[in-house]
Amino acid sequence: MNYLFGVDGGGSGCRVVLTSTDGKILGKAKGGPANIETSFSRARDNIINACMTAFKVANLSENNFKSSYAILGLAGSNLGNYASKLSNDLPFAKNKIINDGEITLEGAIGPVDGCIGALGTGSVFVGRKKGITKLTGGWGFNLGDDGSGAKLGKELMKLSIKCHDGLENHSDLTIDFLKNFNSDIKEMVECAKSFKPIDYAKYAPQIFSAMRCLDRNARKLIESEVILIEKSLIAAGFREENPFCLIGGLGKLFLPFLRDVFVRSCSEPKGDALKGAVSIGKREFFN
Amino acid sequence: MNYLFGVDGGGSGCRVVLTSTDGKILGKAKGGPANIETSFSRARDNIINACMTAFKVANLSENNFKSSYAILGLAGSNLGNYASKLSNDLPFAKNKIINDGEITLEGAIGPVDGCIGALGTGSVFVGRKKGITKLTGGWGFNLGDDGSGAKLGKELMKLSIKCHDGLENHSDLTIDFLKNFNSDIKEMVECAKSFKPIDYAKYAPQIFSAMRCLDRNARKLIESEVILIEKSLIAAGFREENPFCLIGGLGKLFLPFLRDVFVRSCSEPKGDALKGAVSIGKREFFN
Repeated sequence: MNYLFGVDGGGSGCRVVLTSTDGKILGKAKGGPANIETSFSRARDNIINACMTAFKVANLSENNFKSSYAILGLAGSNLGNYASKLSNDLPFAKNKIINDGEITLEGAIGPVDGCIGALGTGSVFVGRKKGITKLTGGWGFNLGDDGSGAKLGKELMKLSIKCHDGLENHSDLTIDFLKNFNSDIKEMVECAKSFKPIDYAKYAPQIFSAMRCLDRNARKLIESEVILIEKSLIAAGFREENPFCLIGGLGKLFLPFLRDVFVRSCSEPKGDALKGAVSIGKREFFN
Repeated sequence: MNYLFGVDGGGSGCRVVLTSTDGKILGKAKGGPANIETSFSRARDNIINACMTAFKVANLSENNFKSSYAILGLAGSNLGNYASKLSNDLPFAKNKIINDGEITLEGAIGPVDGCIGALGTGSVFVGRKKGITKLTGGWGFNLGDDGSGAKLGKELMKLSIKCHDGLENHSDLTIDFLKNFNSDIKEMVECAKSFKPIDYAKYAPQIFSAMRCLDRNARKLIESEVILIEKSLIAAGFREENPFCLIGGLGKLFLPFLRDVFVRSCSEPKGDALKGAVSIGKREFFN
């Protein structure tokens, strides 16, 4: 008897759904972080454990675990050779690893042409044109992640330094932000040395709050990213007449500041990334 | 008998000069990297070894080593509490640790009001106003270093990704640059994971070469930094009528692209950072 795992894995955790070959949901489970670029073996173990939990939840015989199929949408799978390495290291009868952006696109708009921007701690833009899916961005925090919470937080730090040094003018946002570090740039620089993307990202909501109070520096930070988000969506194949969703914790926060054509075209996602994974898995393995 | 060490320590190495109390040079030596923020104990050992070498070069009795004074201009000494930690850990009778930017300023313009921009792998801007010296920038690669080679190199990487993704248009610069990574963005992102500032900085000369061929992307990258360099100089107290020098490997390369007022006012430095260290040391210890 075959079963299908759908896996949605990102930097803060992974979610798993187990279905029958006709897509009926049998069990769900959650697990730890699953960005295979940032922590390969930890991601692998978290994914396998979550799948095992879903199997137990569904009360299935363990004998069937290894004969199951799995479709995995994982952050970082577009980088290095992590995806092929993991694919050879999974216990399933068949597996296919794609980017988490791709299952998010499928879940959000279904099997049609259109695009999404996924804006969370990191960012990726995914478009489908004539049936072919393509990632834009998704290159990680060091060199990419435009429009992400992590980038916003880091840019706030850089701007606060410029205000301190007298290159730019302080506003309530930069003054209040520096209070997180006893208003001491040295302390901020020292803290940031051990920061991971998630640590920078925690300051993003503070920027949007300030934006609602028309803070000048908040506007500068958000507008810089909005330009990049719009360019990325267009590069991902945005077309007014096709489905388009802005997803992730920051999607809703950024949307009001995008140009009208994006705001008008934006719709609620039809379903989540797990639904997308199952949909792709059925097409991939059982068609 | 007292002697004075002048030390100029940065991320790529340190230089030491040994003088008599009246400033006569007795010996010189070079040593390994001495940025106390990025590698504290290695920097300390390199500094002490270089000082010992200078003492031997001068053929002085080892008995006098510990009774010598030292003035140290060190990269990273404005961050954390590294300077006071090192100060307590040095074998000299007296020592004073200041930023390498401060000794560079003193060497370049002497004990007068004015400013410098030091643009190398990293960057710092130093001004003196009514006798008081102040750093602008110098916050390190993660959040600062505007106008530095490391930042230019990293921005070239980010721009190359944007060209690849279709957000910006390729030029000869970005196409040629990607050939360093087999024209493969994945490979570039993977390489950059282990990059230190010096690794990014090695691509800066390529950008200035392309600029001489009027490359569109080179201009974009250089002009972005020029804006920040000019703002930083003004924040450091730049005044047309006061001495001003642009120092470091990239100083000469950036200068032609600054506004006329900066180009007109810029002069050759009177002396190097070691000369500045000795000058400050004499004032500090023997006045």
